[in-house]
Amino acid sequence: MAVQRRIDLILESVRRLLRMGATPNLLNLLQKQHPADLARIFAELPERERYATFNVLVEKNGKLAMEALSELGPEAAAPVLAMRSAEEIARLTQELPSDDAAPLIDHLGEELRIAVLDLIRPKNGPGVSELLEYDEHTAGRLMNPNVFAVAEELTAAEAITALQAARDVEMVFYLYVVDERRHLVGVVSLRRLLLVSPDTPLKRIMTTDVYSARVDTDQEEVARQVASYNLLAIPVVDRENKLTGVVTVDDVIDVMKDEATEDVYRMAGVSREDGALTPPFESLRRRLPWLLVNLVTAFAAALVVGMFQSTIQQVVALAIFMPVVAGMGGNAATQTLAVVVRGMALGELTWANARQAVIKEGLVGLGNGFGAGLVGAVGVFIVTQNWVLAVILLAAMVINMFVAATAGTLIPLGLRAAKIDPALASSVFITTFTDVFGFFSFLGLGTLFLRFLYQA
Amino acid sequence: MAVQRRIDLILESVRRLLRMGATPNLLNLLQKQHPADLARIFAELPERERYATFNVLVEKNGKLAMEALSELGPEAAAPVLAMRSAEEIARLTQELPSDDAAPLIDHLGEELRIAVLDLIRPKNGPGVSELLEYDEHTAGRLMNPNVFAVAEELTAAEAITALQAARDVEMVFYLYVVDERRHLVGVVSLRRLLLVSPDTPLKRIMTTDVYSARVDTDQEEVARQVASYNLLAIPVVDRENKLTGVVTVDDVIDVMKDEATEDVYRMAGVSREDGALTPPFESLRRRLPWLLVNLVTAFAAALVVGMFQSTIQQVVALAIFMPVVAGMGGNAATQTLAVVVRGMALGELTWANARQAVIKEGLVGLGNGFGAGLVGAVGVFIVTQNWVLAVILLAAMVINMFVAATAGTLIPLGLRAAKIDPALASSVFITTFTDVFGFFSFLGLGTLFLRFLYQA
Repeated sequence: MAVQRRIDLILESVRRLLRMGATPNLLNLLQKQHPADLARIFAELPERERYATFNVLVEKNGKLAMEALSELGPEAAAPVLAMRSAEEIARLTQELPSDDAAPLIDHLGEELRIAVLDLIRPKNGPGVSELLEYDEHTAGRLMNPNVFAVAEELTAAEAITALQAARDVEMVFYLYVVDERRHLVGVVSLRRLLLVSPDTPLKRIMTTDVYSARVDTDQEEVARQVASYNLLAIPVVDRENKLTGVVTVDDVIDVMKDEATEDVYRMAGVSREDGALTPPFESLRRRLPWLLVNLVTAFAAALVVGMFQSTIQQVVALAIFMPVVAGMGGNAATQTLAVVVRGMALGELTWANARQAVIKEGLVGLGNGFGAGLVGAVGVFIVTQNWVLAVILLAAMVINMFVAATAGTLIPLGLRAAKIDPALASSVFITTFTDVFGFFSFLGLGTLFLRFLYQA
Repeated sequence: MAVQRRIDLILESVRRLLRMGATPNLLNLLQKQHPADLARIFAELPERERYATFNVLVEKNGKLAMEALSELGPEAAAPVLAMRSAEEIARLTQELPSDDAAPLIDHLGEELRIAVLDLIRPKNGPGVSELLEYDEHTAGRLMNPNVFAVAEELTAAEAITALQAARDVEMVFYLYVVDERRHLVGVVSLRRLLLVSPDTPLKRIMTTDVYSARVDTDQEEVARQVASYNLLAIPVVDRENKLTGVVTVDDVIDVMKDEATEDVYRMAGVSREDGALTPPFESLRRRLPWLLVNLVTAFAAALVVGMFQSTIQQVVALAIFMPVVAGMGGNAATQTLAVVVRGMALGELTWANARQAVIKEGLVGLGNGFGAGLVGAVGVFIVTQNWVLAVILLAAMVINMFVAATAGTLIPLGLRAAKIDPALASSVFITTFTDVFGFFSFLGLGTLFLRFLYQA
């Protein structure tokens, strides 16, 4: 709240100063901001003003301008950067740690990316181009290769001196201790270093049981480790246990945001790369296949309705209320699915208590079916004065909502047993399932009691 | 992967040692584990074995046992704790920092909670009971009141000595500097403390522009600040800017998990307190009202179908395929909604580019409508041999999926303008909206071209 108000005020001043062409004042204002705040200001500015503001800042303070772009995220930042020549981009990206520079360069167009990588490769050996060689979503891609390490022979005082000399290594929380061939052998926290006498050898105070990730560890697993063990950073090693980088907790927070997005997306049948500002044709290309899969299941539902064609012809009211039964089942299934999928993601729902969860959701489904079914039946009776139709709706809703709740629990559990991401049992898929079942139970009961439907 | 395998192995040993009654060996194994790993083991154990394991551990190592319970989360941990007397619980919770003890005690039953709070209140003045007085989901509830602060008159060397003396303050990343009345006046990072000469006064090296939260700041806002500014901890102050606690990055990670769950839940129409293991009646009580709201909208859809009763009676095929049109609109809307709601949560979608997003989603809706509509029309023609019906389905799907995409963008944007959480425009709600519109467009077109439907 307070932060947003401050950003709004700064944003107003930025736009005013831009219009007035008061470049020195604008520069003065921008230089006082935190990169994260600048990123928010960039995000809120219309495209042309964003470019103009970046241009003013980058001339005087390339580092701050690039940090702001990095905070803005590669999708939005790359177009701003792409207005410049490869030489300028190469120079500007050197202002960032290579793990922040890599995604920006990765999101430039094909041609520009190659040109920039060619320019920076000779200069600083391991760095951006090395990071880009690791697979996306791995620790290798995520890590900062500029990791601060000390030799195991040093004393506490010598380690502090080494730390004081290493000026451009940012965010040091732990001293990683390596042997002469850079194998990771231990870790000492900064605080522990302060608490011991200066001549204590690191070997004596270091913890040798170090949590570490390998360059090919999935970023989600890295995030889980950092979160579970309350770490501030986790060292990344290669196949030979040589220290190659470090992933810090701020990177982990970004990963967690991504993974939360992915959960929401999967349940809705949207791919990871899709976003509110993805070009229309690309979104279309990513979403349509999923919709076509659902079209097939929708036709299955239609065929179920088709089976009862003659019943519908005789009692049209069945066609009128069948969407109620199907839709309510879908809603109940969506609720169950959200609880079950999220429960598994958070580790609350395990194999040990899966049976308990299935029974529980089944009971809730029955309860919801009776509750919503009774209210629905009263509604049907008021509209049609047909009490048999009302009772059929009640019965169909109880059956369908029980099935919806059970399927909404069993399907994601089954997917996990088969080592498939449970979030793939998206609400879209399960909704069509409840459509089929809802139509079948309602129209089936209607056919069974057709004689009574007439009499009522 | 590797972590899970290790947990599985330990779990197997725990169960075997429990069965054998080999308590000393079991204790030995448990004592070697990290609290977070113990929590995972507790989560995987069936109830009775969980209690037994906890009992073995708590007798010998109360602190570790309590830390494991804390990592397990209050919902699952409180029942384990509730097996003991209020006196024992009071004693055991003293092993935890008060911000970790508070949620555990808060989740005990009413009676036990009051008894425990009565027992611990006299002993340690500000602590658990004070924390529980702040509203849930605020910085005050989240913070650790045991914050390490130093007086502004100290030198770097004196501050280090003070830090060395303060042994039970865990996770110190920053030294918060306060004046004689405990007002927060500055901050010095631990690393900076190492880099200056020992007699430098803190006043000269501290940053006076401190990011801080107030006790009543919403936890989501606290998390956003820590994440944006890459902080390891944020100090919490009261209304008079007096330092009262600190929120560390590991708490922020927990908040982010909660908020991600809330986003998934809101879109599915599930309340924050619901979970996979919530007692059935409570889940029912929380979910049914939402389903009843949807029942009303489902009846609205039914009434739309009812308007076209005589058309359906004449061409039953319309009733067969109307769920396809409605359902596909719902699926397209769910996709759009996920992208738009998440885009707003991540700050990618702002007022500046909202127009661009609306146009884009509209275009995607049209594209999806044509794509899925054409395939659907071919399907209808194959099943019914009626080309007029096929064309009507195509037209209705284009219209409905365009409307679905536009509504899926405009409704959350409108909610945000009205300062309502956009995630409330849940897929459940918008799906019913697309039902109404899908039935109307398909049956309406069917009525309009009824004559041609017969001829075909």
